Amino acid sequence: MHYHVNGDIVPESEATVSVRDRGFMYGDAAFETIRAYGGSPFEWDAHADRLRATCDALSLDHGIADDELRRRVRRTLDANDLREAYVKLSISRGVQPGKLTPGPTTNPTVVVIVSELPRGGIAGESVWSGPATADVVETRRVPDAALPTRAKTHNYLNGILARLETDADEAVMLDSSGAVTEGATSNLFFVRDGTLHTPSLSGPVLPGITRDVVLSLAEAEGIPTETGRYEPDDVLCADEAFLTNTTWEVRPLARIGATEIGEGDETVELGGGDVTAQLADAFDALVGTRHYAGSRD
Amino acid sequence: MHYHVNGDIVPESEATVSVRDRGFMYGDAAFETIRAYGGSPFEWDAHADRLRATCDALSLDHGIADDELRRRVRRTLDANDLREAYVKLSISRGVQPGKLTPGPTTNPTVVVIVSELPRGGIAGESVWSGPATADVVETRRVPDAALPTRAKTHNYLNGILARLETDADEAVMLDSSGAVTEGATSNLFFVRDGTLHTPSLSGPVLPGITRDVVLSLAEAEGIPTETGRYEPDDVLCADEAFLTNTTWEVRPLARIGATEIGEGDETVELGGGDVTAQLADAFDALVGTRHYAGSRD
Repeated sequence: MHYHVNGDIVPESEATVSVRDRGFMYGDAAFETIRAYGGSPFEWDAHADRLRATCDALSLDHGIADDELRRRVRRTLDANDLREAYVKLSISRGVQPGKLTPGPTTNPTVVVIVSELPRGGIAGESVWSGPATADVVETRRVPDAALPTRAKTHNYLNGILARLETDADEAVMLDSSGAVTEGATSNLFFVRDGTLHTPSLSGPVLPGITRDVVLSLAEAEGIPTETGRYEPDDVLCADEAFLTNTTWEVRPLARIGATEIGEGDETVELGGGDVTAQLADAFDALVGTRHYAGSRD
Repeated sequence: MHYHVNGDIVPESEATVSVRDRGFMYGDAAFETIRAYGGSPFEWDAHADRLRATCDALSLDHGIADDELRRRVRRTLDANDLREAYVKLSISRGVQPGKLTPGPTTNPTVVVIVSELPRGGIAGESVWSGPATADVVETRRVPDAALPTRAKTHNYLNGILARLETDADEAVMLDSSGAVTEGATSNLFFVRDGTLHTPSLSGPVLPGITRDVVLSLAEAEGIPTETGRYEPDDVLCADEAFLTNTTWEVRPLARIGATEIGEGDETVELGGGDVTAQLADAFDALVGTRHYAGSRD
């Protein structure tokens, strides 16, 4: 695989940063994970907007235009002859004099790494092999007052510690008040009595791009939707639940801890359900229309 | 300057890690900052213990003996012909397959970077040129439930965001309940009516090595000491205050926000005081005895 580092395409073995890069020393970096379908990034504008919000939160003024970032993503895909891919775009504050307080970002480190994924859209296949399992973990989500929730940064130990608590596919984290926030790498949705629910962004919940797309699709499909503050019991009693992120897309959630979601409702298939399936189909259709128009999809 | 990376001494320009190193991608790494006086690390055992506690908190089982780590520190100092130095020792979880959940640490990344500092001890000079200034900032210290407070990790954005709020030398952070915790890179002490105070480790306060040394010195000097939970007002009304860390050692604190510490007490020199001076002298004497015995110090 070839990666893009500070303007150059380099073999993976040569894709390095200084040990004094603030990305390595402090996790002082912003990132986005982006899905490429049919050779082009899904929801580029939304990712570019969120990356800008992260950099604003970190006062990381890298001075690189969105178009140039997009060009680097494309060059990385082309260099690897990839059309269906996971893309991680990172911007760190680079190497600076040896102080914690950052100076102006005169020399940011910009990295694009990629890996291959299956084809998306209606004729595509999922990254995952089955519905997800999850556990509600003890590690609490970092509050917004300590690290701005809207910032997607290389400070990812909170999610790593959450994942280390469980063998399930995902770790669901609560905030300091005990409300459900999100998974370590995904947003959480659940369905009860036909209404779609997801924790609102007033809590420490990352504004996921796939979360936004799913909320728009729900509106277009006429599915009643509510965002709010939820306790774990609200999710455990749901008829359906699913997780969203850039690579999983819409992934049914079969189990949280010992509780099977939708258990006892014989009309709902375990690990999914009518609303989940409807939204997953709508998502695939959207990807198909946008990225594979003219192909057999 | 030469650094030590994964067993080799390399020039700074070749001291790099992979862009897929988890230290860069997630700040998934432990570190210690250590002071070398007269060629040997100050309080090595305490640093080795705390590094082990950090790695335990991260389930980062790197398998490298303390003695070997100490040998790498010494080799890095020798390679640069340094006797008085700042040393940063980092251990990241290294490169692993592309999942957030860590696997066993089979290939950790171990880095030692150094820079020159002035000579320590009684005949030495301080890294700082005068008493510190500080501001109490809005950014709150990450709670223990989100990231274990005892862990000193490469997830350092909390301190960076705190520092970005102020032009002062240090940013004093409160916990979510409004209690004083510590500075972005230092522990905070204050003196009132002859008693030395510092926030207790029951709050989100890093167990600083210099903090521990100062508490021991205070005991040996017969200075009454109390650790507890303090509001900002407790510090603002103090007769004296100072900050401690590995490089600053004991640094008087002259001002917090608009408040001059010790103001109005004409027997106390601004930015310091009798107890601060006594502890700074005791610290210098300890360093002298341990690291420069036999020299003119």
